[in-house]
Amino acid sequence: MLVVLTSEATTEQRESVLAEIRRLGLSPRLVATPPIITIGGRSASGAQLAAIRNLAGVTEVLAEVPPFPLASRALHSERSRVEIGGVIVGSGEFVIFAGPCAVESEEQAVTIARAVAAAGGHILRGGAYKPRTSPYSFQGLGPAGLKILAAAGHEAGLPVVSEALDEASLELVAEWCDMIQVGSRNMQNYALLRACGRMRKPVLVKRGMAATVEEWLLAAEYVLAEGNPNVVLCERGIRTFSDHTRNTLDLAAVLEVHALSHLPVIVDPSHGTGQRSKVVPMARAAAAVGADGVMIEVHHDPDHALSDGVQAILPAELADLITGLADCIQLAPRPERRAPARG
Amino acid sequence: MLVVLTSEATTEQRESVLAEIRRLGLSPRLVATPPIITIGGRSASGAQLAAIRNLAGVTEVLAEVPPFPLASRALHSERSRVEIGGVIVGSGEFVIFAGPCAVESEEQAVTIARAVAAAGGHILRGGAYKPRTSPYSFQGLGPAGLKILAAAGHEAGLPVVSEALDEASLELVAEWCDMIQVGSRNMQNYALLRACGRMRKPVLVKRGMAATVEEWLLAAEYVLAEGNPNVVLCERGIRTFSDHTRNTLDLAAVLEVHALSHLPVIVDPSHGTGQRSKVVPMARAAAAVGADGVMIEVHHDPDHALSDGVQAILPAELADLITGLADCIQLAPRPERRAPARG
Amino acid sequence: MLVVLTSEATTEQRESVLAEIRRLGLSPRLVATPPIITIGGRSASGAQLAAIRNLAGVTEVLAEVPPFPLASRALHSERSRVEIGGVIVGSGEFVIFAGPCAVESEEQAVTIARAVAAAGGHILRGGAYKPRTSPYSFQGLGPAGLKILAAAGHEAGLPVVSEALDEASLELVAEWCDMIQVGSRNMQNYALLRACGRMRKPVLVKRGMAATVEEWLLAAEYVLAEGNPNVVLCERGIRTFSDHTRNTLDLAAVLEVHALSHLPVIVDPSHGTGQRSKVVPMARAAAAVGADGVMIEVHHDPDHALSDGVQAILPAELADLITGLADCIQLAPRPERRAPARG
Amino acid sequence: MLVVLTSEATTEQRESVLAEIRRLGLSPRLVATPPIITIGGRSASGAQLAAIRNLAGVTEVLAEVPPFPLASRALHSERSRVEIGGVIVGSGEFVIFAGPCAVESEEQAVTIARAVAAAGGHILRGGAYKPRTSPYSFQGLGPAGLKILAAAGHEAGLPVVSEALDEASLELVAEWCDMIQVGSRNMQNYALLRACGRMRKPVLVKRGMAATVEEWLLAAEYVLAEGNPNVVLCERGIRTFSDHTRNTLDLAAVLEVHALSHLPVIVDPSHGTGQRSKVVPMARAAAAVGADGVMIEVHHDPDHALSDGVQAILPAELADLITGLADCIQLAPRPERRAPARG
Repeated sequence: MLVVLTSEATTEQRESVLAEIRRLGLSPRLVATPPIITIGGRSASGAQLAAIRNLAGVTEVLAEVPPFPLASRALHSERSRVEIGGVIVGSGEFVIFAGPCAVESEEQAVTIARAVAAAGGHILRGGAYKPRTSPYSFQGLGPAGLKILAAAGHEAGLPVVSEALDEASLELVAEWCDMIQVGSRNMQNYALLRACGRMRKPVLVKRGMAATVEEWLLAAEYVLAEGNPNVVLCERGIRTFSDHTRNTLDLAAVLEVHALSHLPVIVDPSHGTGQRSKVVPMARAAAAVGADGVMIEVHHDPDHALSDGVQAILPAELADLITGLADCIQLAPRPERRAPARG
Repeated sequence: MLVVLTSEATTEQRESVLAEIRRLGLSPRLVATPPIITIGGRSASGAQLAAIRNLAGVTEVLAEVPPFPLASRALHSERSRVEIGGVIVGSGEFVIFAGPCAVESEEQAVTIARAVAAAGGHILRGGAYKPRTSPYSFQGLGPAGLKILAAAGHEAGLPVVSEALDEASLELVAEWCDMIQVGSRNMQNYALLRACGRMRKPVLVKRGMAATVEEWLLAAEYVLAEGNPNVVLCERGIRTFSDHTRNTLDLAAVLEVHALSHLPVIVDPSHGTGQRSKVVPMARAAAAVGADGVMIEVHHDPDHALSDGVQAILPAELADLITGLADCIQLAPRPERRAPARG
Repeated sequence: MLVVLTSEATTEQRESVLAEIRRLGLSPRLVATPPIITIGGRSASGAQLAAIRNLAGVTEVLAEVPPFPLASRALHSERSRVEIGGVIVGSGEFVIFAGPCAVESEEQAVTIARAVAAAGGHILRGGAYKPRTSPYSFQGLGPAGLKILAAAGHEAGLPVVSEALDEASLELVAEWCDMIQVGSRNMQNYALLRACGRMRKPVLVKRGMAATVEEWLLAAEYVLAEGNPNVVLCERGIRTFSDHTRNTLDLAAVLEVHALSHLPVIVDPSHGTGQRSKVVPMARAAAAVGADGVMIEVHHDPDHALSDGVQAILPAELADLITGLADCIQLAPRPERRAPARG
Repeated sequence: MLVVLTSEATTEQRESVLAEIRRLGLSPRLVATPPIITIGGRSASGAQLAAIRNLAGVTEVLAEVPPFPLASRALHSERSRVEIGGVIVGSGEFVIFAGPCAVESEEQAVTIARAVAAAGGHILRGGAYKPRTSPYSFQGLGPAGLKILAAAGHEAGLPVVSEALDEASLELVAEWCDMIQVGSRNMQNYALLRACGRMRKPVLVKRGMAATVEEWLLAAEYVLAEGNPNVVLCERGIRTFSDHTRNTLDLAAVLEVHALSHLPVIVDPSHGTGQRSKVVPMARAAAAVGADGVMIEVHHDPDHALSDGVQAILPAELADLITGLADCIQLAPRPERRAPARG
């Protein structure tokens, strides 16, 4: 059960509503933003529902709520728009996130950032902390990588997004970037999700390799429940028996997210296929199915990339993709030049 | 190893090549069409390869061949075009297969057939033999259903395709329809595939729910190896843990088929999602990824359909889909009026 | 809805019950054995149920039935025992099916048959018709293979089981063998299942690679609904992302079958793992979980086997397995010498 | 490439070996324990290998190493034995981990702890930090839960294991418990794995729901590479399409771990099935396949458990399981009374 308070409810009203619900023998829990009280345990009687509905500061009482009330359309029927350094995701206009898998050097990052901007991309991606399956693989440049990424984004006039792995890296990503990425491997790292919910930067929650859409929306709910409403989801392929691609991109999940939730959802065809030759057509398919954007790995010299080179496309391929998309769908406008995330 | 004979090779030349290969201690096997000799077991020496290459009637000897030589691009680098009652699949122009899951009555079939034609569809689908998970579910109208389908196709000016389940139904489908469908459940029913290979009508091979792309191409190879070159593949979703759709549509498989094989491949978003609301966007995604067509279940009264009504779209939705597709891709021309498959 | 007739119901009584149900506006369907009438479509009213219950020859009317009434425990609460050439499966005693993947020659078959008998095996398996993924792989010896298998079984005093692929091979397998196997690839080949239901020999139904337990029981229902009550199920692994074995053996499925159905269920650790070294421990696990038996591929010279040699164990390993099992569970008694299946 | 130093190598020798490898133009990385140097990037020439092999302090140079050298049997052919509060896992004797899903109260924990000890269990499990799919589910008692668990273990004479979710909870788990558990959802939370590697308590690494065996061993490698050699693995089921159990228990993975690694591996049939009635038979199957132990959820009042009650068995069922196992396999001895983990 869910009790929604008016946004003007005073602290006294909140406390009073909570006290009254407790007095009725129920177990309320206040969820920070928007002001919502969830009631767990046994269900309330009709009389109890009516009593709660009449309390000062209460606008709505929902007896049946989805497991992810804040992410669901039950309380928020319009699509959410999330702003990332001046670029809006979820407006109905398609957004291109692109950049290297990992930041390798200033030269590499700036070269790619300029190419992404020239091709018409909107947001620069780049990993500074890389969650690698092997402890002996290149793990990213860390803080130095974040600074390079931020500088490259500034140089090219693009907002930047990078992945956080734990609370230490989260602080730095939130400082240097316009958006924080939670990777697939951490989709059920609830401590990290909660910490993201306490940040003010928008958060990109990638779907776990074995996660149902419901579990994925519940991961987003962890961020929302801590008070950060700026969540974008990212479908990036699931683990199946089908071995011709690295993962199986579940494009219908975009439709499911749009049916159940107001949150924007983008698609990552780079991890979703793991093969350069399949990235561009699957990006087109993502646009056709109605995704709010795509995230694509781009490298000017993929054969010498320090990670995942086999799935990176060339800047020229990105430019062709964007040109082709512009014929069929509405792209977001170019980001305006603005101050970097940190300053 | 694979030995390709010239198409002008005489019977004597073939026999002579086979005899010579046996004399070299190898085990040849003649594959009917095109004239190909596969050599199993141990690999041949360089001297043996050279000896075979010099035999009269031999054009090519391939030491390394894919497991599905006839389906592969190794021997047939151009895309195949398969003609179905005047409609070409594989030309680069997009083909719409549409119609009811099951033929239920003459009135139903004709109503839907006319609607499919009016919407701009190319080929009428409709099941007369339905492979149902339960023995107690509606199993289709059988021979009567085929006759109704053929009549409805004739009425609407559309070629027709229907599924065969065994050799008895295959004879009838081949008699009354323009194309024979082998369903997912029978993708590894090799007796049925071989029997299809002995027919002269084109064959639609749907991917099995647990089949890799390689196994699917090997299923096509069973048809090709019996001498029928007219095979179209159909991706219809695979079984995964992801439970928001009936199956997970593996759209990247279209790209894999095009990379490995010259055969055309279409997509079935109706079975691939199992949900009416997801069919149209996934059909658009199939077009965007480069499929040669889509197969869509349409019903004028889906709530009363005898099977799979929840995944059937309305004729008006089909018309909207086709209109929308025409803005972005090239559709195949309308089929010309012609004599029905049987007559 | 399901109406169960007494086993003494006369033909007149049956017809009268069917007529009365039709008169009530319902759609009955007689299922051959045991005498059962299923009623599809809309559900009956309480008054209609009472009226049907009072008809002569009716013993039970079930308003809620599982989708697989004949396979379920709803109508048949005791475990079924299936006799295969004198060996009982389903008695609580463990049964060993063993033999080569494919019959290769008389010498091979007799050598292995004798070794299986000496090791303590109960039933000889061997493929004469092999459903191979590639049309160019060894497809089995066909009718000659069945005769060799029958002779080897006779020589070793073991009943025999072999796979049928279509109606033609089914006739021959039913003639020469004590049990008919329907392989995983044909689990949803309903024409074949129905034809097996019209045979009098017991049928082994292997689980499809992508089949749920419910779909598997429905495949068994196809056989039962045609009047053949002698069905044994076989778990042989499912397709998953886990790539260290050829398939993932779903041993808990044995428990699910025992919970839902009265049919016996055995386990095939050879296909379930695809690796020689894992076969024996997984066979032990199958016994521990309560399976009614195991089916194991054995070859005296696995490195030269014509198919699936990598998963065949040696006769000595089979003997050790059986000796070890005898310490923990009750094995079925050795089969008595008797006339072969055909004669 | 991998260079193994003698355990007596001095710091000077290590530095000298590293310097020499760098001088050869290669990129060495020292892995703490055992003293190993990995060399990434390009492979060394034969002359370089020989030069390195001759350096003082070097015992072995392996050109081909598995991706998880420390977890593999290449460097450590004998099975590892891991001691948890006096109980040895990996000795060939079977170890029973049992207890509630979550610690709910002192009374609950002590009641269950005593029952586990009385039944013959060896190690008490109990969650104080619960990674719940929903942010609104019971999340565990936190620090208070750890103290209760430690007290209950002390009371019953059993060592205790509990899950850590992040660095803050890890500190507390390592303080109050004998073993640290990393759950499935965190199997690729590399920051957490690394932090576990810096602890001195043994670590239980549960397999991720979508992890291959190789990825799982690489997760263990993260712990080992930080210097903690005491890792036990736990198979707990994987995500597949098969829906009759919560997960599909991949028992053959136990064999794969034993083939590739020296680390002990136990099985969790509670999460592996998610159904009370399947836990005991699957635990028997785990023993039959050669697992080093099982981890089982036990509750004296499962219908009122705060989490996962449907998969908890009763203490009496645990006692019956252990009695039955003792007939077939060797159980570990009861733990001796000793001081608690903290004190």
